[in-house]
Amino acid sequence: MSAPTVALIFAHPYAERSLANRELLKAIDDLSFVERRPLYDLYPDFDIDIEAEQGRLETVDTMVLQHPVYWYGMPALMKLWIDEVFTMGWAYGEGAAALKGKRLQWVATTGGDFDAYSKDGPHGHPFEAFVAPMRQTALFCGMDWLEPIVVHDAHSDQAEVAAAGQRYRARLLTFETARKRLPA
Amino acid sequence: MSAPTVALIFAHPYAERSLANRELLKAIDDLSFVERRPLYDLYPDFDIDIEAEQGRLETVDTMVLQHPVYWYGMPALMKLWIDEVFTMGWAYGEGAAALKGKRLQWVATTGGDFDAYSKDGPHGHPFEAFVAPMRQTALFCGMDWLEPIVVHDAHSDQAEVAAAGQRYRARLLTFETARKRLPA
Repeated sequence: MSAPTVALIFAHPYAERSLANRELLKAIDDLSFVERRPLYDLYPDFDIDIEAEQGRLETVDTMVLQHPVYWYGMPALMKLWIDEVFTMGWAYGEGAAALKGKRLQWVATTGGDFDAYSKDGPHGHPFEAFVAPMRQTALFCGMDWLEPIVVHDAHSDQAEVAAAGQRYRARLLTFETARKRLPA
Repeated sequence: MSAPTVALIFAHPYAERSLANRELLKAIDDLSFVERRPLYDLYPDFDIDIEAEQGRLETVDTMVLQHPVYWYGMPALMKLWIDEVFTMGWAYGEGAAALKGKRLQWVATTGGDFDAYSKDGPHGHPFEAFVAPMRQTALFCGMDWLEPIVVHDAHSDQAEVAAAGQRYRARLLTFETARKRLPA
């Protein structure tokens, strides 16, 4: 068996209650090239092992960040993971290249349906208005930013969730096919 | 002495190292109507007392959120504070009105200078591109969103920091003058 080429960073504080995230994970369950790092299981006390996380990221060529959208952004533990793991001199700054050229695939689930993200909806904007922080984080580290997979109405629309699971699986498979040959 | 009318939620994991945040706090140090809640002092273990936080917010008419910008957003502990304190049925959802009509004043410091936040700068966008999540969080809870105070180049530009401190102080004083009479 070859080493994982995809690190899946997953953050959901109440994962067992999330239909969408459970189904998304199920759809990719058998993909042996994906290493799952469920942050709320690994670090329930918010005490992140920075070296271990950096070490895992260094061996893969794709990073997937999967989480529910809370207040137009990441759950706190995923933000902490980024704040602590993406250090100066490693992720960015002079000579830093640990993440350079790797892919970032964002997978986000929202409670609101598609229409809730519109000028006249409760969220006041299309979802695109809230993408800039994540996209720029990727670009600032020299990563390849991919079209996000965004699953709306994740509480109730089972057909949408199932379709998204298949999209997710297909996307990850393309990463394995187009495996990058990163410098050792 | 009257009760505080402003709750200042402050989050900086290394506050003693931050020139800008220290100076900003110094500029408002004597304002007795401001209650400071330094999250990293109160909750070093990320174990937030939700009821206490909600109780404090209920008694004021202005919330100030002050923090350095990390990866185009809040430090993780402030995100956790929002994720946990802004509960459904209290901050939003049917009949929820705890924050309705209160002011939200955002005070953000950035390491990058003003030009770094531009199309051709390292952050790829003007700072405005990263404001949507915070602004929409305020609006979703029915709060009044005020023009943010954003202090760029917070590591080195002492004149800019001093001027921002005076702007900050003046802004808080207008809140006390225009004290809201919220229903009890």
